[in-house]
Amino acid sequence: MTSADQGLLSAARAGSAVEDATGDAAVLRALLEAEAALTRAWARVLPAVPQAAADAVTQAARADRFELASLVLRAREGGNPVIPLVADLRSAVGAQAAPYVHLGATSQDIMDTALMLVARRALDPMLADLGRTAAALARLAAEHRATPMPGRTLTQHAVPTTFGLKAAGWRALALDALDRLAAVRAALPAQLGGAAGTLAAFHAHAAALCPASPSPPDIGIRLAEAFAGQVGLAVPTMPWHVLRTPVADLGGALAFTAGALGKLAADVLVLSRTEIGEVSEGVGGGSSAMPHKRNPVRATWIAAAARQAPSLAAILYGSLAAEDERPSGAWHAEWQPLRELLRVAGGAARDAAELAEGLRVHPERMRADLDATGGLIVSERLAAVAGDPADPGLLDPTTYLGAAPELVDRALRRTAMEFS
Amino acid sequence: MTSADQGLLSAARAGSAVEDATGDAAVLRALLEAEAALTRAWARVLPAVPQAAADAVTQAARADRFELASLVLRAREGGNPVIPLVADLRSAVGAQAAPYVHLGATSQDIMDTALMLVARRALDPMLADLGRTAAALARLAAEHRATPMPGRTLTQHAVPTTFGLKAAGWRALALDALDRLAAVRAALPAQLGGAAGTLAAFHAHAAALCPASPSPPDIGIRLAEAFAGQVGLAVPTMPWHVLRTPVADLGGALAFTAGALGKLAADVLVLSRTEIGEVSEGVGGGSSAMPHKRNPVRATWIAAAARQAPSLAAILYGSLAAEDERPSGAWHAEWQPLRELLRVAGGAARDAAELAEGLRVHPERMRADLDATGGLIVSERLAAVAGDPADPGLLDPTTYLGAAPELVDRALRRTAMEFS
Amino acid sequence: MTSADQGLLSAARAGSAVEDATGDAAVLRALLEAEAALTRAWARVLPAVPQAAADAVTQAARADRFELASLVLRAREGGNPVIPLVADLRSAVGAQAAPYVHLGATSQDIMDTALMLVARRALDPMLADLGRTAAALARLAAEHRATPMPGRTLTQHAVPTTFGLKAAGWRALALDALDRLAAVRAALPAQLGGAAGTLAAFHAHAAALCPASPSPPDIGIRLAEAFAGQVGLAVPTMPWHVLRTPVADLGGALAFTAGALGKLAADVLVLSRTEIGEVSEGVGGGSSAMPHKRNPVRATWIAAAARQAPSLAAILYGSLAAEDERPSGAWHAEWQPLRELLRVAGGAARDAAELAEGLRVHPERMRADLDATGGLIVSERLAAVAGDPADPGLLDPTTYLGAAPELVDRALRRTAMEFS
Amino acid sequence: MTSADQGLLSAARAGSAVEDATGDAAVLRALLEAEAALTRAWARVLPAVPQAAADAVTQAARADRFELASLVLRAREGGNPVIPLVADLRSAVGAQAAPYVHLGATSQDIMDTALMLVARRALDPMLADLGRTAAALARLAAEHRATPMPGRTLTQHAVPTTFGLKAAGWRALALDALDRLAAVRAALPAQLGGAAGTLAAFHAHAAALCPASPSPPDIGIRLAEAFAGQVGLAVPTMPWHVLRTPVADLGGALAFTAGALGKLAADVLVLSRTEIGEVSEGVGGGSSAMPHKRNPVRATWIAAAARQAPSLAAILYGSLAAEDERPSGAWHAEWQPLRELLRVAGGAARDAAELAEGLRVHPERMRADLDATGGLIVSERLAAVAGDPADPGLLDPTTYLGAAPELVDRALRRTAMEFS
Repeated sequence: MTSADQGLLSAARAGSAVEDATGDAAVLRALLEAEAALTRAWARVLPAVPQAAADAVTQAARADRFELASLVLRAREGGNPVIPLVADLRSAVGAQAAPYVHLGATSQDIMDTALMLVARRALDPMLADLGRTAAALARLAAEHRATPMPGRTLTQHAVPTTFGLKAAGWRALALDALDRLAAVRAALPAQLGGAAGTLAAFHAHAAALCPASPSPPDIGIRLAEAFAGQVGLAVPTMPWHVLRTPVADLGGALAFTAGALGKLAADVLVLSRTEIGEVSEGVGGGSSAMPHKRNPVRATWIAAAARQAPSLAAILYGSLAAEDERPSGAWHAEWQPLRELLRVAGGAARDAAELAEGLRVHPERMRADLDATGGLIVSERLAAVAGDPADPGLLDPTTYLGAAPELVDRALRRTAMEFS
Repeated sequence: MTSADQGLLSAARAGSAVEDATGDAAVLRALLEAEAALTRAWARVLPAVPQAAADAVTQAARADRFELASLVLRAREGGNPVIPLVADLRSAVGAQAAPYVHLGATSQDIMDTALMLVARRALDPMLADLGRTAAALARLAAEHRATPMPGRTLTQHAVPTTFGLKAAGWRALALDALDRLAAVRAALPAQLGGAAGTLAAFHAHAAALCPASPSPPDIGIRLAEAFAGQVGLAVPTMPWHVLRTPVADLGGALAFTAGALGKLAADVLVLSRTEIGEVSEGVGGGSSAMPHKRNPVRATWIAAAARQAPSLAAILYGSLAAEDERPSGAWHAEWQPLRELLRVAGGAARDAAELAEGLRVHPERMRADLDATGGLIVSERLAAVAGDPADPGLLDPTTYLGAAPELVDRALRRTAMEFS
Repeated sequence: MTSADQGLLSAARAGSAVEDATGDAAVLRALLEAEAALTRAWARVLPAVPQAAADAVTQAARADRFELASLVLRAREGGNPVIPLVADLRSAVGAQAAPYVHLGATSQDIMDTALMLVARRALDPMLADLGRTAAALARLAAEHRATPMPGRTLTQHAVPTTFGLKAAGWRALALDALDRLAAVRAALPAQLGGAAGTLAAFHAHAAALCPASPSPPDIGIRLAEAFAGQVGLAVPTMPWHVLRTPVADLGGALAFTAGALGKLAADVLVLSRTEIGEVSEGVGGGSSAMPHKRNPVRATWIAAAARQAPSLAAILYGSLAAEDERPSGAWHAEWQPLRELLRVAGGAARDAAELAEGLRVHPERMRADLDATGGLIVSERLAAVAGDPADPGLLDPTTYLGAAPELVDRALRRTAMEFS
Repeated sequence: MTSADQGLLSAARAGSAVEDATGDAAVLRALLEAEAALTRAWARVLPAVPQAAADAVTQAARADRFELASLVLRAREGGNPVIPLVADLRSAVGAQAAPYVHLGATSQDIMDTALMLVARRALDPMLADLGRTAAALARLAAEHRATPMPGRTLTQHAVPTTFGLKAAGWRALALDALDRLAAVRAALPAQLGGAAGTLAAFHAHAAALCPASPSPPDIGIRLAEAFAGQVGLAVPTMPWHVLRTPVADLGGALAFTAGALGKLAADVLVLSRTEIGEVSEGVGGGSSAMPHKRNPVRATWIAAAARQAPSLAAILYGSLAAEDERPSGAWHAEWQPLRELLRVAGGAARDAAELAEGLRVHPERMRADLDATGGLIVSERLAAVAGDPADPGLLDPTTYLGAAPELVDRALRRTAMEFS
């Protein structure tokens, strides 16, 4: 299909693990996994559903057997890709298993569950990249805990700080992102509710399948639990068709991540300026016109991500206000922005890891910049001590670091929230 | 000042506790509290700072003594209102205490701390309103756990559900909002870092005040802890001038809150339609032109809030990417949107509480609507059981509720996260 | 490449002309067109550049000869896809023409020009779809200029209106969108400025190519004009590398379009409700679980588009504030959101055309709904005339239409701004 | 009222003409103007409406006679401030004129018209400030058309440019903003449609007032035209209650303005950096902690505005998708963001005028920075001419300006679109 994008306008994330985990192929796999898990869950909770059917569906649910392009075109008419997928899957499993495909489910059960699977798989490399980023920044912070450099406020030299304190701050934000994403990831729920979230069709099918012996009254709830177990997602308290907390939480945590890494990027961009040159990216950054240039390209990609993520998250927060048992628009408006947001944040996380691991620090430039204002950078100290401006010790910016090194030590004691 | 707004364009929140807690007068109070707390903290950690100075500043720091309009005009030149406020406060405290005002601090220390105080005070009534909302919805859910009504998807009747399940879902979202806001509230930190977040000026002033006996090497960190204690906010690991996690987290939690309540509003708006009439708001909603009308006005205000909040939160997420030790723009861009977001969410919370407590439910209209499609609403059941369409039992929508009542029971077992 | 998306999460626009016009393949074509146009422009303004080179580049610049996946991966290191593309194109044209490839240009010249070409081609089907939409709505408006139906405000019946007036309003918005898009389209400019927008490299290359006879002093400006002519885009007053008016204007006009069509969708969704049923979509809308359902699926897709577009436009407006002669992030943040916004609006335009052309109107349901409140819908009239409520004429809602039919006539006199 | 804001968190715009034009007092005045204009319009088109009533309403409609706080509190119940205002106005005009107050109108007629009046008055000083900005930038551009400075891309020195070309670019954006705002301003329409936009109540009242002689069939349309004339706004083709083009267009043009000025600010912030120092703001910018600092405070305020405006505009674009003849939420969500956006853009325009008029340019720093890379900044030229790197002429950055001066001349030929 000629319109398939490979990343020409989003090279930052092209080829990344997150991109892979969120592509149409991955979504299709997840949709099929959800369908197969549902039939297996049925077989577990209701003996009348043959294990052979579950096996057949599981066997047939291989993404390479399905025509993505055809699914997409048919998805338009019905409003989502599950409707044509179920038709194709029923054909694929054969007549005996076909009745047990998508039994009692609604399209949204499968879509939501699949997107949670996709999100979890996209978060894994992101969390790993944030871990790499934090580790690299911890090394920089420790190494440069007392490396003096100008502190800058409103673009002007203010008072000295240390590069270690900057790096420790960047790390703190990376850990904040990691904590938020890990918490969201752990709570990603499966979805199973049927047409309006009452589980009624599951009860009806169970009754129809076992006309002689009535199925237990909590068969729907048990099925939902078994389903969550099969896909490996959390069991929600109730169907969340129109209670979009998981999606909104993803939106917030991903926007946070892109923004948190955007702080690192913003600083690297300032410090890389030709006139400042206190840090430089380790690799990349050639120019088509100017052979001498070394552009801070990873910081640039991250900065671009940080500009996109908040608005994408806003779309997801906006979809909380969803009418009825399935809204006309609010749900559909989530899909592409959620994927795009995963990619934007995921690309930023990969770039941040490479940036942090490769960053070159130039203490001699920091030292030179500290002297650029001829002592003005310690004017605060002179005012504070009301000292003799001729005292050369007072004018030395490298001895006006306050608690910067100690703050680095404190910050480095923090470890990331555990997850797995 | 003639341009002072009283809420003509934001009546939803006018007169609310949140509006009060976020007005300029409240901000001014909080700024003064922060200044007074700083001098008291000094007196606690450094005997050379006289308690009398701390008392004098605390006494003088009364908002009604300061000219708001003058502060505002002077704030423009310096870039924030703390600069003129410190000047006025120094005048107010007298010559003896003046040197101990704002000692070693930077404007942002005071602004950030004050805004965290303002946020905390705005969150308190919001949390209470969410608690009221959840309680009222719990009552509705319990009462109507088995009250049948049409489940609607993509605007069409799908299968029956119960009003109790809808109400339980609304409550779940209110509790989700409550949990998120309470967690953010508990973490709101004080800010104290000095000009570039190194605490250097605090060290310099301590040394200058006690030239004979050197002050402890962790004087800055101890001062920051004492300051947090005085204002009653959390102690951060390190100054967060440019690590804007607290503000971004507020943004996310508040956008979540408005959106979560927006779901309740969206449903009430649908169910209140003239042709549906399954619920109605208890009070309000007159019209200037049509005496017969009863508009769902609280749901309308909430829906308007839910449309504004995500974009306001996007501004705050965008400010994470802040360059240097204080950025030119990203920080300043937070102030007004944060306040506006507190108000938007706070107004929605108040309206939601009144809406939930006053909501009138009309089961007879629900019953009539269930019959409107002549049994089509149970066509899923007929397909599932492959039963005899002439069996009147199968056509009864009130017996096709699935696990709706049980799901209500499960949902009601959840209680809100503790906070305070 | 496995992650290539074909539209599984964005079926609304899959297979559309806009999707085709904005895919990676189309972008690659446009990039190559820009490169070829540049060499041809050189040959036109400077005889020293051989026409044979221009022909060779034009011949070689065929997208199918280039490896998209490889370009994407290499784009990441340099910060944009033009750098590797130029390398591949130079290889493809042979040694004689190679020096004339990308001569004096910077990557952004090619990217910006290509994206303007892509935008123009995406706008063409969109404008056609808006024209179809407006035409279909004009027919509906004329046919139903006096068909009475309830006017609804804040979800409640207010006073009668006519379906024709609603349709005329929808059409007015479609024409507004058409006007705005057509104006933006006509102004889409080529970009040629060189590394920093001064055209200096073009001057230097011209001088180097004609060492004997100095090239005219306005050679750069003439080249830029010739280049615009070759690609068929407008000639800008000056290079707009960091004057992003064209992109911001696109953002605004596309957000407007999605929103304007969103009004049509919002009304169709209300009027399609099971309890209202005053209109229905002509086709589509099946359900995976409920055979009886006819979902308003086109209106749903449009509503989803209207929820996404404003935030995407916000990203583009945000990129106006771009530092330097090329910013680190603001420019890169435009690419994907601009494409996404073209697709979102383009999908909505296609859906709106199909929706408008296929819409079924049910005047009998409108008539029945007018009577649903037993005359309350004309209570305004009774109050106005202070008439005898027993006068049956006053209670007839079909005679309280005000100027609705005349307003339809007036509205239909408006025609779309000419473009082409 | 204690919560009235005077600008403590938005000092950038405090005390500005735009702030004044958008405050609650100004909105109240505009609401009253609209009411008075309506009665006067009645008297013009229908002799049965006594001119004395029109005079009485016009006399009574003085904002200082109404209690803003009371209106606000009562606005909450009805959903907008017009309902209580009409009640108070009827009391104020006396029994004879009271029946002619708000005759046939709906609240939205008055609110929309008033907000268009407010917008127009807020745009006037904004347009003037943009004119000042453009004029000052034109002077800078002319003066420095050939003043060489480093062109910077992706934070690195690229090739030389001139300060005049930068200033000409800033001016071009200011003119673009001016053109867009002026066009929107000229189109701002009055609103008069009655309860559902059919003008029916106006017809009914006219008939009731002249039972003997039937009023002309186009009385409603004539009244709407007379009303627009009385308030001095454009006559719309049809009532635009739910055709929100004027508000969306305002949103786009205002976001454009803030972003366009944000480019100026972004550059000033870079060029003001301590290490660069190529420009400085003329005034302001003191610090509470560091006496030596001169912060670029106007650029900071503008940058903060540019970060807020796109999201506020997104809310307005989002309100295009408004259901029914008056939506529950979309309309109400416009009010405060529209006002806030006017203020944000208006503050930025004032700051830009002061910034541009006071900007200090330091050509000697530009010259020094050009030499900072030891000729690397002309490496592009060396590559282009393949010349002798030892040729000192080739290494001179001041002779590699391309067409920069000529581009300035071209740009300065453009004048702003006329308006008034």
